[in-house]
Amino acid sequence: MRISSPRAPLFFTFEGPEGSGKSTQVTLLSKALEKDGHVVVAVREPGDTAVGEAVRELLLNADVDLRPRTETLLFNAARAQLVDAVIRPALAAGRIVLCDRYADSTLAYQGFGLNQDPQALEPLIQYATGGLIPALRIYLDLDPERGLQRHAQAAASSSQRIWDRFHAQDLTFHRAVRAGYHKLIQCQPAGWMVIDALPAPAEVHQQIHASVSQTLARLQGNSS
Amino acid sequence: MRISSPRAPLFFTFEGPEGSGKSTQVTLLSKALEKDGHVVVAVREPGDTAVGEAVRELLLNADVDLRPRTETLLFNAARAQLVDAVIRPALAAGRIVLCDRYADSTLAYQGFGLNQDPQALEPLIQYATGGLIPALRIYLDLDPERGLQRHAQAAASSSQRIWDRFHAQDLTFHRAVRAGYHKLIQCQPAGWMVIDALPAPAEVHQQIHASVSQTLARLQGNSS
Repeated sequence: MRISSPRAPLFFTFEGPEGSGKSTQVTLLSKALEKDGHVVVAVREPGDTAVGEAVRELLLNADVDLRPRTETLLFNAARAQLVDAVIRPALAAGRIVLCDRYADSTLAYQGFGLNQDPQALEPLIQYATGGLIPALRIYLDLDPERGLQRHAQAAASSSQRIWDRFHAQDLTFHRAVRAGYHKLIQCQPAGWMVIDALPAPAEVHQQIHASVSQTLARLQGNSS
Repeated sequence: MRISSPRAPLFFTFEGPEGSGKSTQVTLLSKALEKDGHVVVAVREPGDTAVGEAVRELLLNADVDLRPRTETLLFNAARAQLVDAVIRPALAAGRIVLCDRYADSTLAYQGFGLNQDPQALEPLIQYATGGLIPALRIYLDLDPERGLQRHAQAAASSSQRIWDRFHAQDLTFHRAVRAGYHKLIQCQPAGWMVIDALPAPAEVHQQIHASVSQTLARLQGNSS
């Protein structure tokens, strides 16, 4: 179902395990694309709408009992609002949209991570996104052990809240998430850009910027 | 999909438009069944779990912008948690569960009311409920105009919060909801009990009590 939908040409998503540097890369790419003359809207999941931020608070709070299906439905509620109220209007206005996590996070975390059949989650994701598919999914790959260390360090040195709910999960969970991403990419390699997240952020950024610029140029070539 | 699943023999749901007296009837039936020697768990949607109550607050707050798919997913998130954390354990322990609103409310309100194809919502409901079907759905029928009046009066004379989000909708919405219930019942009449909600609560209660007792007796006959 998702394969058959056309990709939204100006829509780019960032995926990867904890600590892979997605939010840093979203910021760096956003600035670079603006320098290149584009208008960019950067958003994160869950969040960037009133209901999305409320859902984020609920999900962040590890004291609130959430069963796997509840967690999955909450993420998708925030996603539906973000798509309809922010992403689609921005794309319609010709803006580039960068999204920190999107549908593939549900497949990796709530699917592979929480032992729900990813195929059974597809209709739900299709419903929540209304079939909106990114032009390119940028996957930042990192060993979970290294990622969790990095994430804890970053959280300690800033006011950033860490994802207690996922940090409470053991390494087995985080390895399953990473393996899940690898399976998603293997199953449907077109549309993914896989990047080693270990090098310095500036180096990672250069690769992403080059790849996104290429995708945009190709699209402009197609439409002209 | 839902038709083929077996019904949970001790699970009863209450459906109907605003002001049809569902919560009053849940309380009356709960007391009557306890008098008859049953152990009863009464719950409401959305609510009765930490996440359910938080979702209820979000849905009650008419200032929070919610698109139809967001609203639908939030109701189903609360539902999934209620089913897994409260309803299934209670049924497994041999208790009777009475639920004030359930899956059919999504079909009537977010489907027929908000112009979403009810058939497209079925996979979502199937996912959220894990296929849990009530033994009997008690539908309290009332003209929406009368129901909204009644509901406003009840809210004024108590501390009960009214559903601003749905009250902000016009009569056309509430008529579509009622017509939606009628269509659901027409499509699959088995498993529904339709009751005129206009008479006094005690009279309505007697009918419900008789019908539920009959259903329970039939089930005990089947299992003995």
